[in-house]
Amino acid sequence: MNVTIIGTGMTKFGELWSSSPRSLARIAVDAALQDANCEKKTIQAIYVANMLSGMLGMQAHLGALFSEELDMYVPAYTVEGACASGGLAIHTAIASILSGQYETVLVLGVEKMTDHKPEEVSSALMGAGSNEERLAGATFPGLYAMLARSHMKKYGTTEKQLAAIAVKNHYHASLNPLAQFQKPLSVETILHSSYVADPLKLLDCSPVSDGAAAVVLQKSDMKKQHGEVQIVASQVATDTLGLAQRKSLTELVATKRATEAAWKQAGISPEDIDVAEVHDCFTIAELLAIEDIGFVLKGEAAQKIERGCFTIGSAKKTVINTSGGLKGCGHPVGATGVKQIVEVANQLRGRCGKRQVHDARIGLTHNVGGPGATAVVHILKK
Amino acid sequence: MNVTIIGTGMTKFGELWSSSPRSLARIAVDAALQDANCEKKTIQAIYVANMLSGMLGMQAHLGALFSEELDMYVPAYTVEGACASGGLAIHTAIASILSGQYETVLVLGVEKMTDHKPEEVSSALMGAGSNEERLAGATFPGLYAMLARSHMKKYGTTEKQLAAIAVKNHYHASLNPLAQFQKPLSVETILHSSYVADPLKLLDCSPVSDGAAAVVLQKSDMKKQHGEVQIVASQVATDTLGLAQRKSLTELVATKRATEAAWKQAGISPEDIDVAEVHDCFTIAELLAIEDIGFVLKGEAAQKIERGCFTIGSAKKTVINTSGGLKGCGHPVGATGVKQIVEVANQLRGRCGKRQVHDARIGLTHNVGGPGATAVVHILKK
Repeated sequence: MNVTIIGTGMTKFGELWSSSPRSLARIAVDAALQDANCEKKTIQAIYVANMLSGMLGMQAHLGALFSEELDMYVPAYTVEGACASGGLAIHTAIASILSGQYETVLVLGVEKMTDHKPEEVSSALMGAGSNEERLAGATFPGLYAMLARSHMKKYGTTEKQLAAIAVKNHYHASLNPLAQFQKPLSVETILHSSYVADPLKLLDCSPVSDGAAAVVLQKSDMKKQHGEVQIVASQVATDTLGLAQRKSLTELVATKRATEAAWKQAGISPEDIDVAEVHDCFTIAELLAIEDIGFVLKGEAAQKIERGCFTIGSAKKTVINTSGGLKGCGHPVGATGVKQIVEVANQLRGRCGKRQVHDARIGLTHNVGGPGATAVVHILKK
Repeated sequence: MNVTIIGTGMTKFGELWSSSPRSLARIAVDAALQDANCEKKTIQAIYVANMLSGMLGMQAHLGALFSEELDMYVPAYTVEGACASGGLAIHTAIASILSGQYETVLVLGVEKMTDHKPEEVSSALMGAGSNEERLAGATFPGLYAMLARSHMKKYGTTEKQLAAIAVKNHYHASLNPLAQFQKPLSVETILHSSYVADPLKLLDCSPVSDGAAAVVLQKSDMKKQHGEVQIVASQVATDTLGLAQRKSLTELVATKRATEAAWKQAGISPEDIDVAEVHDCFTIAELLAIEDIGFVLKGEAAQKIERGCFTIGSAKKTVINTSGGLKGCGHPVGATGVKQIVEVANQLRGRCGKRQVHDARIGLTHNVGGPGATAVVHILKK
């Protein structure tokens, strides 16, 4: 693939009432440039990932906006694919390097959600789904609740098993100083939280968050920098926007397609992955991801999660969502796919402190838009 | 550059009350695929250009939406850069081919504006500008009126000269069956229209429009198809989002930078261009474009326009905005940059009927986002 991650940066994720999108972008980008040991003038293009700025804040044209804010007047683009915007921006930026157009580019994912009323945010997020679903009054927790019910019916998955996913991710988040939530949660706490869309409870759902993440990508044969991580696969797949158009509600076909293409591109298989950040907007989403990526066979993820697999310190790989995932680290929509790359790159560079996975050498990111309509998979290698 | 335009299609532009974004997309894409003599399964990725769907209709994730509508489940992206979204999507799609990722891709620009109240549309369009400008109550006609006043003051440009641009573009539109406006207008009619933002009158402004345009791009060394047009330059440049941050209000620096890079990339100069579609969201915008692209020296465009230059049938090249431009053909924002490519490709293929420019061999497109914050320039050659 010939593309290297030479720098990463991110803000704390959370309810950042006193920060503007501009200030979040600046913090993440400054950190990424410093990490890359790279001056602003080295950057030849900016890819911005964002979903909600237009709908919630009536501000479009973010490429030019952040270009101005960062004082970097280079070609600037906004790439959008709902919650997969970050992954798509990374994928598009990689293509721009492989095309020979640019040698060094910046990807910036940013979202500011807490300035708006919850019902406005909820309504804007349904922009990721189909018109029919919106007209029927569906919300995202509602759509994923249908996926959860289907999985429960077919494979006997329980609410307690789903809760175990949240327990793992909040534990990981408690080891990540930049995560939105800093405390471990028990299965009981999760099971006793209020239902949002049966069988999903409040603590099965990822939060509303603010935050930004940035990555500097460079053509691999440039002068070597410190601690390089290569991108060895970058794949995108698309499924129907609406759930009603799908043949199965117990798998996300886009995830399977993108991942299979990624294995082929990188010449590796699920057993090789040491760390993965997967798209856990709801606990059921992580369960589906673990199965659809192929870490376990279909229907076998729930029991393994309950036994403590995929957690930092567990004997077997793969460790999943060391950042805390969307669930524990937070889900500022446009930033999420970029943050996944930041986390996996940092794991491969041995920089994750208390949540460091020993000798992590190969990592995967999995970013989903809507209830599985878009899936983006990257494989990283040190 | 190694990228060929193998098919183009577009809907009629106008107030298309009975059409949905889905139906507009289908018409444009079906036409482009038929023109390319290409089956759906040949398309490996879809790049959607759109600005307003989220803000006006709360529908994001258009890549997946149109993928579903077109029954083409391939990687799908939305690219946004305000009114330059179409140009940016073309540029991004070109990069995806040059990267080796895909061989044949579809670019779809689509916008549905007339379903919404004028004040909502006006407010959403200001999403292309800066927050400070919005807070100050500026509208896009207001921002371009400032550019017009500056140009008048510095170069003695008159309202009558600006009107001559509208006369030319409405004349061209009258020769284009797909244009929103089908009648020529006189200088007097334009000068007697109401002021929107002094010195710009209603007939100095491009309209609110619905429409879609589609282009099929292919790696050049694929099996030869009929009537091929090569893309020989694709360049993007960025300037400040806000006008207050600029040194000059009588030129658009982003246009100059993108065009200079395009000349260099294609190895040609302004004199070589037979036909051009430039971004005339307002008459003053075309005036600035003609000068900043370098068709004439700064300050000399107005007199030449008044003398009938740049019109179909005039003795000298370059003929500008044969489609009618944004002014006469209409400006469905996300579709505009793609339509420019459709028009120039059709000119080079000799398919433009009454508005055909004799022996057109080299063409240029120029697409602008906001009041000059983003500029995208393509050069096409047959």
